[in-house]
Amino acid sequence: MDDHKGLALALGEAQRGYEEGGIPIGAALVATDGRVLGLGRNMRVQDGNPILHGETSCLQNAGRLPSSAYQGSTMYTTLSPCDMCTGACLLYGISRVVIGENKTFLGGEAYLKKRGVEVIVLDSPECRELMERFITEKPKVWNEDIGVEERVYTKENLEGIS
Amino acid sequence: MDDHKGLALALGEAQRGYEEGGIPIGAALVATDGRVLGLGRNMRVQDGNPILHGETSCLQNAGRLPSSAYQGSTMYTTLSPCDMCTGACLLYGISRVVIGENKTFLGGEAYLKKRGVEVIVLDSPECRELMERFITEKPKVWNEDIGVEERVYTKENLEGIS
Repeated sequence: MDDHKGLALALGEAQRGYEEGGIPIGAALVATDGRVLGLGRNMRVQDGNPILHGETSCLQNAGRLPSSAYQGSTMYTTLSPCDMCTGACLLYGISRVVIGENKTFLGGEAYLKKRGVEVIVLDSPECRELMERFITEKPKVWNEDIGVEERVYTKENLEGIS
Repeated sequence: MDDHKGLALALGEAQRGYEEGGIPIGAALVATDGRVLGLGRNMRVQDGNPILHGETSCLQNAGRLPSSAYQGSTMYTTLSPCDMCTGACLLYGISRVVIGENKTFLGGEAYLKKRGVEVIVLDSPECRELMERFITEKPKVWNEDIGVEERVYTKENLEGIS
């Protein structure tokens, strides 16, 4: 699958999450032959669930699979993956992680690369604008989702000031 | 809370999982003041869910919490945490990870330490025997849970031969 098409699937999930009042991060897991194995979005707000980030939600929705199903697969995600989602991709031996943007949050990209995962950042303005809007509107919900306490965000610094 | 008491909570979850026909790994998240924030067990088999390992299930059951709730907390787990559960502990800034055993599976202990988490391995014979029994009985389910394909286990090598 073309990477921009894969990211569009993830972005569609993120937009749906935003419309639901949730944290707008989405993901799509696509097999090496182009089949979509799963779609998912952050469900912290909707389900009150702290482990359902975009990527983990996507893996949950893909269901139980043999390890061979993940070989060669690509995880598309609108935002640089946090430590938990980084680890989830490593656990299942996902081969590629394609990221919408890493300007509002920089996750485990270096660790993924170190462990042999191909990482591509597409620098999507749509992904970034959606996160910027959300962080500006609900900074406390965002802080909760990334496990930080008193981080303050400004228009100029959406990675935040601790 | 005494670490052996905390581990006993996790082991109780693991035993319940075994009785349900599941993967016998359990966890307990205990706050710095001794309150039990959550209990959980691997639910791959019971719920058909690939992201519900012991620790993630425990975090899910603890529900949405501010990051301050995790500060100083201890994650008790019957087995050395996989990459996903390692990352989940890092995401939420869990201070200590107390592990029942790491002989049947060695997870992200070194990475947790590198990132500043205190890691203690209690070398529990009960945790090890339960995992040995399960791996011997259901090696394919175990391989699926740790994202490997054709690993073969022998009585002498329960970490497996690839």
